[in-house]
Amino acid sequence: MAEIKKGSFTLPGEAGFESLTLKMAEKWGADVIRDSDGTKLSEDITKAGYGIYSTICVIRADNAWAKKNMDKLQQNFLMSEPVMAESDTVVISPLKGYFTQQFKLNKSEEALAYWQVFDRTTGEEIKNWSFDSEAETVTITGAAPWHSYTVNFLAVRLWEEISMYNHITNDWGDKEHLMAVDPRYPETQAHMIDWMTEWCEKNPDTTVVRFTSMFYNFAWFWKDDKNCRDAFSDWGSYAMTTTPLALKEFEKKYGYAMTSEDFVNAGLYTSTHNVPSKKYRAWMDFINEFVVSFGKKLIDIVHSYGKKAYVFYDDSWIGVEPYSKRFKEFGFDGLIKCVFNGFEARLCAGVDGVTHELRFHPYLFPTGLTGEPTFAPGGNPKLDASRYWVNVRRALLRKPVDRIGLGGYLHLVEPFPDFCDYIAQVADEFRLLKSFNASCEPYTLPGKVAVLTAWGSLRSWICSGHLHEHPEVDLTNLLDAISGLPFDVQFMSFDDVLANGIPEDVKVIINAGVANSAWSGGDYWKEAGVIEALTAFVHNGGGLLGVNDPSAVWANGSFFQLAPVFGIDKDLGTKKCIGKYVNPVTEGTFAMEDTPNIGESMVENPGVYCKSANVSVLAVNGKTPLITLNQFGAGKAMYLSSFRVSKESTRFLMRALLTLLGKEDKVRDYICDNLYTECAYYEEIDKLVVINNSGDTQKTVIKTAKGDVTVELAPFATKVL
Amino acid sequence: MAEIKKGSFTLPGEAGFESLTLKMAEKWGADVIRDSDGTKLSEDITKAGYGIYSTICVIRADNAWAKKNMDKLQQNFLMSEPVMAESDTVVISPLKGYFTQQFKLNKSEEALAYWQVFDRTTGEEIKNWSFDSEAETVTITGAAPWHSYTVNFLAVRLWEEISMYNHITNDWGDKEHLMAVDPRYPETQAHMIDWMTEWCEKNPDTTVVRFTSMFYNFAWFWKDDKNCRDAFSDWGSYAMTTTPLALKEFEKKYGYAMTSEDFVNAGLYTSTHNVPSKKYRAWMDFINEFVVSFGKKLIDIVHSYGKKAYVFYDDSWIGVEPYSKRFKEFGFDGLIKCVFNGFEARLCAGVDGVTHELRFHPYLFPTGLTGEPTFAPGGNPKLDASRYWVNVRRALLRKPVDRIGLGGYLHLVEPFPDFCDYIAQVADEFRLLKSFNASCEPYTLPGKVAVLTAWGSLRSWICSGHLHEHPEVDLTNLLDAISGLPFDVQFMSFDDVLANGIPEDVKVIINAGVANSAWSGGDYWKEAGVIEALTAFVHNGGGLLGVNDPSAVWANGSFFQLAPVFGIDKDLGTKKCIGKYVNPVTEGTFAMEDTPNIGESMVENPGVYCKSANVSVLAVNGKTPLITLNQFGAGKAMYLSSFRVSKESTRFLMRALLTLLGKEDKVRDYICDNLYTECAYYEEIDKLVVINNSGDTQKTVIKTAKGDVTVELAPFATKVL
Repeated sequence: MAEIKKGSFTLPGEAGFESLTLKMAEKWGADVIRDSDGTKLSEDITKAGYGIYSTICVIRADNAWAKKNMDKLQQNFLMSEPVMAESDTVVISPLKGYFTQQFKLNKSEEALAYWQVFDRTTGEEIKNWSFDSEAETVTITGAAPWHSYTVNFLAVRLWEEISMYNHITNDWGDKEHLMAVDPRYPETQAHMIDWMTEWCEKNPDTTVVRFTSMFYNFAWFWKDDKNCRDAFSDWGSYAMTTTPLALKEFEKKYGYAMTSEDFVNAGLYTSTHNVPSKKYRAWMDFINEFVVSFGKKLIDIVHSYGKKAYVFYDDSWIGVEPYSKRFKEFGFDGLIKCVFNGFEARLCAGVDGVTHELRFHPYLFPTGLTGEPTFAPGGNPKLDASRYWVNVRRALLRKPVDRIGLGGYLHLVEPFPDFCDYIAQVADEFRLLKSFNASCEPYTLPGKVAVLTAWGSLRSWICSGHLHEHPEVDLTNLLDAISGLPFDVQFMSFDDVLANGIPEDVKVIINAGVANSAWSGGDYWKEAGVIEALTAFVHNGGGLLGVNDPSAVWANGSFFQLAPVFGIDKDLGTKKCIGKYVNPVTEGTFAMEDTPNIGESMVENPGVYCKSANVSVLAVNGKTPLITLNQFGAGKAMYLSSFRVSKESTRFLMRALLTLLGKEDKVRDYICDNLYTECAYYEEIDKLVVINNSGDTQKTVIKTAKGDVTVELAPFATKVL
Repeated sequence: MAEIKKGSFTLPGEAGFESLTLKMAEKWGADVIRDSDGTKLSEDITKAGYGIYSTICVIRADNAWAKKNMDKLQQNFLMSEPVMAESDTVVISPLKGYFTQQFKLNKSEEALAYWQVFDRTTGEEIKNWSFDSEAETVTITGAAPWHSYTVNFLAVRLWEEISMYNHITNDWGDKEHLMAVDPRYPETQAHMIDWMTEWCEKNPDTTVVRFTSMFYNFAWFWKDDKNCRDAFSDWGSYAMTTTPLALKEFEKKYGYAMTSEDFVNAGLYTSTHNVPSKKYRAWMDFINEFVVSFGKKLIDIVHSYGKKAYVFYDDSWIGVEPYSKRFKEFGFDGLIKCVFNGFEARLCAGVDGVTHELRFHPYLFPTGLTGEPTFAPGGNPKLDASRYWVNVRRALLRKPVDRIGLGGYLHLVEPFPDFCDYIAQVADEFRLLKSFNASCEPYTLPGKVAVLTAWGSLRSWICSGHLHEHPEVDLTNLLDAISGLPFDVQFMSFDDVLANGIPEDVKVIINAGVANSAWSGGDYWKEAGVIEALTAFVHNGGGLLGVNDPSAVWANGSFFQLAPVFGIDKDLGTKKCIGKYVNPVTEGTFAMEDTPNIGESMVENPGVYCKSANVSVLAVNGKTPLITLNQFGAGKAMYLSSFRVSKESTRFLMRALLTLLGKEDKVRDYICDNLYTECAYYEEIDKLVVINNSGDTQKTVIKTAKGDVTVELAPFATKVL
């Protein structure tokens, strides 16, 4: 395997460990050295001839200024813990239970105007309440005994969440708590512009300013209780963007006001996993517009100093929206995504007009995201790294990125030489792959696969956050599986379908998720236009893949609104007395051929049943179908009770999609016959890349235009033919 | 064990097997001989000195008359199979898919007035349709392509369902199909009165007329497809009571009309398992009033001939309602219930003012209800009988019945002498138990346990049908378990609670079922009055047992509306980003003491989570609680994810109820220390009856006022001390 020994690699340097930094830069073929949250670069590093990335986080960059401008800190709505009335008077301490190092009440008059009190037993808003500013309590009079009451209030945030997390995870002790200022305030904007200019002046060696990220972090509300920290945690939510000023500007622009309840939603908040309201979508757009317009000013400053501006697609990425039409207006030069899985590589790679960089895991921290040791005794960072690399590599065969890198404290790698060797190997392998797939597109099966959700393309290639955070989200699993498969994938919203119908080139539609999730679609399935479009699509020859609760909302006697198309429905318990078909299992279908026992890996969706004898059941648990296939008109609809990504389920998915595309005959064309291996064929340069996704030696045969090719691969190996 | 060798036993005789009949009557100590559906008694039997029960089924008794009066047959509403529009015209054959030996269309003008056509995609009623009487098709014009349409229509029933079932099960070949006439028509009433009078004249030997039953069978709609016979089958539904005449009389009386959709409910029909609508309850009351008023006329005739009138609490029992206030107006002398389980014995025993008779299983038929062999090669009727007897016996210790018996074809028992011997033993045992518990009540723990459902006392001791038909219904399982436990049980509806609050003597309330079932309560949990009453009840010291989805309806951010009381809630998928407490398992609580692993028998309810650290988790599956206990004010609330009756779960339930009653100290008083045994103490006669519910020898200790009693019992044995 030819090697390209240098470039496209970003190394985290660390002042105090200059020789290690330069040694590792050499070993890993780095062309760029970066700092990280908690590390600095010294002159020995910045002057060593490497490109220099400097991470900045503008919202927490000047804590002294923040302390003097506590009225310009970021804010959000919180719902108090419910308090039950035992008499006609209820007293609520709104902040009770929340982490008071993160939050304090906004007791200003303009903030109090947004507070709301609800009877959560009946859902009614209560008006007869008063706030005691000194005691910080809300007193409700005329309460109904045994009803539960809550207060929606504005909280000022006292600790920027990522530094709060890093501080606590790394035991930074009495290190100052950094606060996040809100650039919505003109004074903050003016200060940030000054600060950015001054920063550029002071950092002449920096070639790339890495914004981490823009202005608003994903939502992360902490409780006081260490054993149950998260009150609300959502990678995609705009919950932390609400200052009184922003709320007033929104009202002025849109002609109607956002209320606290629009964000609190009876305690559900604005979770990305749930179907967004129209008002919330308007708010997101309002914030996105602001982030782009003010963000561009900072980027312009960076550019004026001859530096590039990259943005990190995590942390305070809210409002950045790389998949929005406005993103290109920022003028960012690069987009950096931290990745554990293939779908995250596609998430980064799919954004147009920027350099794509992946920050690999493990992060050079003592512990991982769930507290497990990584660069610490008991950790095995090489194993972690190889697992993540195998996850990501297959996606890179389908869609290239430009750079990879690491982050964190470099000195932690010293006791792990096997990790250091492995990263050198990965870096070389990455550079090799990049050299192929940067020049042309790999062979892809004909017919687009569209993923239908409430979010559509705005949430392309991701649900909300990493797979390991919500491993039960079927769509995240599907996206990960499909990230390395030879299909052309696009993302479509219900609003898209209602407005424009289904594009001609879409041949298969995926709808996957639990009922009422943004992924399944919730009340969108009460729209006749959606049902009509999908039904016609399949009847006219399209393929439909439904997972878990596709098209699910209870209406008119059905739970699956596409039950006639799937041939199955789900009994929520109200159809106990209705007869149900228990069809025998059909063995040996094309979709199941490589993985006849795939049903065993599926979670049953209790209540799913066949509506007729015509539905083919491909796998069952007891009497409950796990996989079904239904011919509907000229098309086909397949149902899966769940989807959890694995090598086997990925293989099954490929065959399922071929079934739905009606392209069963393509199953051998540039596709490995061994499910532990995958390949990509680059026709223009006539290169075939074959990878082994398993820890065992594998042999695989690939049918090409020139005949069958047999390849043997070492564990996890890549071969180029 | 003293034996009482004769009486209280009803034997099914059979003409042509006279000597067998008399031999078995002697062996089993019968005092009464009966006929069955499909058997007759000859004079050798009726003149042998036994009481004679004669079964009559007045609605199918005179098929010749029925044939001449086809306009007076029984009717019901059906929903056609949905048909999807592929253009703007849809043609539907309403009867397609239904068993045409059971149904034909009622095409009369008065019937057509009740037909309705629905767009089941949108739920809208469609008015632009026409019916072609010759082709028997409905044509809809102006249809929306890809929408599904259905026709609600009135069907005339051509085959009385119980004889249809018996005919087909027993292969009666070309034996005439009996039809059910509707006594709603004055001519039918006149004919039935004549018939009843004539029948009494012709059957002087009959001492008891056993009505099987009154006029309307439980709902049973068959499909044409033998592999999926049931379109709708519900033991408690009034779906088969709707003739145009009845509908008109209802409208006249109530001032509003019932529509076909009130019965069809988008294809869900009027399942007893679902929360009934107010209109449906009114209809039930209307039918009940009629059945009682006309039924009484027939019973009066029977009485005028010096005969007694018993009614069978199955088959065409709809409108009889033994737990309604009107039941005593019939003047029935006896009530006969077929039993598989203890709760059915309590169902019979709990009705006031009648002789209670249990018809045991197995029924003397070649096959059982699910088609398994009983009195046929491969069957083991002795084993079946012993299983049922053990199920039922424990209930008889709590509440006595007066008689037992069998039904079916007596000649089938001949090849099964072990069965014959066993029944002789059961009959003796029954007579012995009866001699005790008829004279006084057994020791019962203090504090009433109330079961809270949408039906309340009208569906005391039963959900709908037998346990084996719907073994997943938690409440049926609970009723069976509690049928033999020393608690005083009553049944309460949400309407009772709203009207009268919770009675003072109720100390524990059970709410058990899947969401939106009549057992859990569905939309009743949106009534603040219900939430207030239950919350106050527990806060003031009451006990609450919730099973599966107690208090469940999605409203105001919660699924369990009593979440504050239980300390737990259920995430339907919309709270993915909300932090949840994962409390450690509390070991060794009182409730779990005899059955520490009972959680292993429980079905997980996915999404159930703790709302605070204060909730005790007694059993889990992964992170999902299966059993929780929460102190709430002065009371306690326990949650079980499911309940399936077994000896172990019954024991656990006893301890759980003692926990909730705050009567943990009573756990030894007249209660066996061995969970495979149970006992009843009759204080007035100072008798202690101990039973072994297991197939192994058991030893048990019982604490009595006179000290501990140790008993050893043979498998399944009963001992009296």
